[in-house]
Amino acid sequence: MIRVTVWNEYFHEKTHANVKEIYPEGMHKVIADFLAADDVVVKTATLDDPNCGITEEVLNETDVLIWWGHAKHGAVPDEVAEMVQNAVIKGMGIIFLHSGHHSKPFRRLMGTPANLCWREDGDLERVWVIKPSHPIAKGLPRYFELEHEETYGEPFDIPEPDELLFISWFSGGEVFRSGCCYRRGNGKIFYFQPGHETFPIYYNEHVQTVIKNAVRWANPDYRVDKLSAPHVKKIGTSDSYIIG
Amino acid sequence: MIRVTVWNEYFHEKTHANVKEIYPEGMHKVIADFLAADDVVVKTATLDDPNCGITEEVLNETDVLIWWGHAKHGAVPDEVAEMVQNAVIKGMGIIFLHSGHHSKPFRRLMGTPANLCWREDGDLERVWVIKPSHPIAKGLPRYFELEHEETYGEPFDIPEPDELLFISWFSGGEVFRSGCCYRRGNGKIFYFQPGHETFPIYYNEHVQTVIKNAVRWANPDYRVDKLSAPHVKKIGTSDSYIIG
Amino acid sequence: MIRVTVWNEYFHEKTHANVKEIYPEGMHKVIADFLAADDVVVKTATLDDPNCGITEEVLNETDVLIWWGHAKHGAVPDEVAEMVQNAVIKGMGIIFLHSGHHSKPFRRLMGTPANLCWREDGDLERVWVIKPSHPIAKGLPRYFELEHEETYGEPFDIPEPDELLFISWFSGGEVFRSGCCYRRGNGKIFYFQPGHETFPIYYNEHVQTVIKNAVRWANPDYRVDKLSAPHVKKIGTSDSYIIG
Amino acid sequence: MIRVTVWNEYFHEKTHANVKEIYPEGMHKVIADFLAADDVVVKTATLDDPNCGITEEVLNETDVLIWWGHAKHGAVPDEVAEMVQNAVIKGMGIIFLHSGHHSKPFRRLMGTPANLCWREDGDLERVWVIKPSHPIAKGLPRYFELEHEETYGEPFDIPEPDELLFISWFSGGEVFRSGCCYRRGNGKIFYFQPGHETFPIYYNEHVQTVIKNAVRWANPDYRVDKLSAPHVKKIGTSDSYIIG
Repeated sequence: MIRVTVWNEYFHEKTHANVKEIYPEGMHKVIADFLAADDVVVKTATLDDPNCGITEEVLNETDVLIWWGHAKHGAVPDEVAEMVQNAVIKGMGIIFLHSGHHSKPFRRLMGTPANLCWREDGDLERVWVIKPSHPIAKGLPRYFELEHEETYGEPFDIPEPDELLFISWFSGGEVFRSGCCYRRGNGKIFYFQPGHETFPIYYNEHVQTVIKNAVRWANPDYRVDKLSAPHVKKIGTSDSYIIG
Repeated sequence: MIRVTVWNEYFHEKTHANVKEIYPEGMHKVIADFLAADDVVVKTATLDDPNCGITEEVLNETDVLIWWGHAKHGAVPDEVAEMVQNAVIKGMGIIFLHSGHHSKPFRRLMGTPANLCWREDGDLERVWVIKPSHPIAKGLPRYFELEHEETYGEPFDIPEPDELLFISWFSGGEVFRSGCCYRRGNGKIFYFQPGHETFPIYYNEHVQTVIKNAVRWANPDYRVDKLSAPHVKKIGTSDSYIIG
Repeated sequence: MIRVTVWNEYFHEKTHANVKEIYPEGMHKVIADFLAADDVVVKTATLDDPNCGITEEVLNETDVLIWWGHAKHGAVPDEVAEMVQNAVIKGMGIIFLHSGHHSKPFRRLMGTPANLCWREDGDLERVWVIKPSHPIAKGLPRYFELEHEETYGEPFDIPEPDELLFISWFSGGEVFRSGCCYRRGNGKIFYFQPGHETFPIYYNEHVQTVIKNAVRWANPDYRVDKLSAPHVKKIGTSDSYIIG
Repeated sequence: MIRVTVWNEYFHEKTHANVKEIYPEGMHKVIADFLAADDVVVKTATLDDPNCGITEEVLNETDVLIWWGHAKHGAVPDEVAEMVQNAVIKGMGIIFLHSGHHSKPFRRLMGTPANLCWREDGDLERVWVIKPSHPIAKGLPRYFELEHEETYGEPFDIPEPDELLFISWFSGGEVFRSGCCYRRGNGKIFYFQPGHETFPIYYNEHVQTVIKNAVRWANPDYRVDKLSAPHVKKIGTSDSYIIG
């Protein structure tokens, strides 16, 4: 059983009529609904919850965290961002969606500002699959399209991805590395670009396929209890602790 | 069900008394025996079989190929090496053991001579796990030891591994990148250094754990039928074939 | 002084009127001309030369080899491809242009078929710089355009680049990783996609800037005499040879 | 001219007699002295200086920053760590020495805790060069030895290095990735493990060679003025700014 927590700042859906129309109960609700499955149990959390909905208890019971934020990155306390970072280092998987590239946890995990270029012109986006045999690409056509999406453009200031899965083409002329895999500590990280709040992106079947696959990919293969810095004595006499 | 084929040149076991004593039926037999499991069915093939035991039929029915060779790399026809390389590109997993670093399929897949330094002095080898949360490391202690092993040393002339899992320490003074992961085309590749024929390496429980885990890791996540170079016409009118 | 050899199969320029018009003396001549500089001396070689113009002597006197081939990949003997591969492993830099992705030396160095998708529809290509501080990007705008170019598309079946520098956008809807850096053995490899023979690509100022920069980047930092596999005895008594 | 700033917390040299004996004026003084050259001008800064000796002015006039800290990581204000991180993203090179792996700037740039195992038993360390043609390895033997050094061991909790240059062997039984290259934003990062304060490591000729080479490698190839996130309008009408 994979335990997923979908975190959403849940701001635009309450303040912008057009967003509310698309996601009347918040995009976390839509994402949670399509993720629920026999082997996946989903909870949600938002900025409105106590402590942003992120506590040690929540993280300890989360195998994969999904993060969507945009206008309210600054409202997430540094302590929460640090807790999330540490949970990933210990092994929790995490999926950052769209404008989550500028969230505190993402920037901390990347070590870079994660800047990019953008335009809001309703461009057509075509997402190309460049590693078709990767588990996150399972069930996808060689490319899929989003009729209207916010345009993201390069340079995207991130470390070279461990694996680059998707590159997007925008009708206005930009390209963007829209699917990026990383391992940090014991945890796996996936960044996926689609998901501007003013378009019904998370209803798209291929977008849903990607996120469903990513949850299974990011789910820790097994739990390693410690990734500490022990002050070990002579190798020959140190006890060899079992991992996993 | 994972279908594994263990390929062994099967030469030293028939010509050197001390090797024969360790592996009376060949090391492929020992490897096949410990790999067999409810979800793994194993076949073996050797240089003595027609066409080295490697045909298109064999490869089509193999999810993960294990390769051990040393003295007889040159006896493997170029056509067979090319078939193996192509099978990996199409998605078959492959695990190269020990002196398999100099086999024709490994050199073709790496694009480098894959040279290294070596000594046969019966050094103690200590294999350190540097990515404890990787599925190939599951169930391992933080390091394990082989009382006597051939010494391999750096520089090991390989492309930078996609993921470096193990680094070995030898009592004589060398270090070696002893567990290296790659993706090439649709296939996954794992190089694992332990396994000199004059020591009973493949009876070691931790070595067995690594190879068992590696088989599950290298097993293709799913099959992609084509990785071709289609001469596609305008995107808008090309049929979008489904992957996986 | 950087010694460059520009290799061109030199076929279309002699057989297709429109190509001849663009490159009356062959594209190698145009490339050689813009590369010549105070610190760069350039020679050329073609398929018409004895042994394809590639001998051990030529490679020994070449710091950076540039390779353009398309229709005549098969006419390059395997022995020549192997010589080129070995020269790179020893430290020679190499730049593969355009359809050189399917040349024998490139496929040998990558370990993959290096397939891709393509169309000849005269699309506009926009080359995006995704690592602006890389030396190969020096002097470039954030993107540059080629009014008409053959369209190359993903998936491009190559190992994950050590550094991905450029991603191209095509007006017909494709994206392509158009600038890729690798290190193999002691040598540096750069793949650069622009250069279809029916368009005057190598007269473009930005394309010229890239190739000029790439020559300086690929030029070996210094020469390492050996990358061998010595059968060394005990570390303590082995002579420690000086590198460089 | 390369402008280097050597930063040292400068604590043990003033409080521990044995360290003071080795580095009577601080290790920054020794490092600055051997780095000074016709093409390198060196300044130093320590925790005792106003604002730790790190201001925007200092960073603006620094091409490569060298960082040694150990007992006083916590005394470096978060604002200073952030300034250093931002300077690297903008293009400044940085070299972290030894226990600098736990400094605030290193952890911020890596995105991980950068934990490791350690012992202080005066082991012999043997540093193996695994990429002999890399510019940082120029002039080194295939390995070099430090008679006594603090032992560092794996797992070292860092992102997979872009290029792994050195792996160290310790007489007590550990291995360690002792030379690691990264690019983050426009800047280059090198981590180099030798340098425990109780041993005269920075007087070793090979250690000096590595740091001298690393300064030249990390020196920005050229300056990119902006790595911002512009809100660009339609590509066709955006002005294409020149990089470099």
